[in-house]
Amino acid sequence: MEKKIITISREFGSGGRTIGHLVAEKLGIPFYDKELVDQIALESGFAPKFVEEHGEHSPGKSLLSYAFASQGVPGIMNGLSTADFLWNVQCSVILQLAEKGPCVIVGRNADYILKDRKDCLHAYIHADMDFRADRIVRLYGESEKSPEARLQEKDKRRRVNYQHYTGRTWGVSQNYDICLNSATIGVEACADIIVSLVNASK
Amino acid sequence: MEKKIITISREFGSGGRTIGHLVAEKLGIPFYDKELVDQIALESGFAPKFVEEHGEHSPGKSLLSYAFASQGVPGIMNGLSTADFLWNVQCSVILQLAEKGPCVIVGRNADYILKDRKDCLHAYIHADMDFRADRIVRLYGESEKSPEARLQEKDKRRRVNYQHYTGRTWGVSQNYDICLNSATIGVEACADIIVSLVNASK
Repeated sequence: MEKKIITISREFGSGGRTIGHLVAEKLGIPFYDKELVDQIALESGFAPKFVEEHGEHSPGKSLLSYAFASQGVPGIMNGLSTADFLWNVQCSVILQLAEKGPCVIVGRNADYILKDRKDCLHAYIHADMDFRADRIVRLYGESEKSPEARLQEKDKRRRVNYQHYTGRTWGVSQNYDICLNSATIGVEACADIIVSLVNASK
Repeated sequence: MEKKIITISREFGSGGRTIGHLVAEKLGIPFYDKELVDQIALESGFAPKFVEEHGEHSPGKSLLSYAFASQGVPGIMNGLSTADFLWNVQCSVILQLAEKGPCVIVGRNADYILKDRKDCLHAYIHADMDFRADRIVRLYGESEKSPEARLQEKDKRRRVNYQHYTGRTWGVSQNYDICLNSATIGVEACADIIVSLVNASK
């Protein structure tokens, strides 16, 4: 069956976002990243920055979540924690975007949200710590924390979020059609492999 | 760096062995499967059939293992359990084969045994239960047990063996350069992707 929707899950710093962008460009289809955040922000009423920071990270256990939840507007958040409310909106937006037509969606557990559609290709991008540490310093600059500590923290938050909302284990190959190590294969080559798989499915 | 050694780990029934064979054929390099078993048998003194059945399966806890171990020839098995002795021989044979030159090695935890060589490409092949159940019935015929039960048993034994000897979790994408779902991608296409990666590394 033709693969129209490509979801790309990725370890922080692995180049998954860049790969998604390249795939969308090469296939001439929309790439949802910023647009996805904006749409979720619009439908949830949260600021885009908040959606960006919490959409893949919070399983509803942060103090902030509880603070928000306790002040939630009845009838809008329906008594859900901020994180659960955000998850519901995220699911709905991703399902709607997939209905619109071919696209590339990066992150936000889209592999799970779209698991029942047969026209999806689910890819996972990972890389070893050195490659990712070097990459985040080049792309996002230095910070107080070491790049390794930043990676471990982000990995942990994405892993916990994924497990919490999907019941699956993050990074297990069986959840995806293809998993690629961008450090050994190369970012461009990863994109080319995904594009060739999509083209072969047509 | 040029990838000269290709290791293929696989779920039972996923077509990993066929993919390994195709890759070796397309690259014109040796494919170690039967030869690997024969070499391990020769160096260990066990029958090829015993090596075939126990090399990827036993973490040294079967009654048979203990029976063998207790009767082990002193100075040959060095007091090791049969499974541990077999593992040591397996490591030594795989390391020697990799030294001999380019090749494809299927199974036997070769991804872990050769993890320190930079000229290896490590692939993992998996597929969903229906695809594999259908495949093993076609290839190996029916048996008393349902194909699903046979798959679950084999999966469990390989997983336990892998975890026992490598300390890693079976099927986690981070252990491999590439993981492929042969059910959605196709057996031939999986082989073509691996071949293209090896050729691109030259």
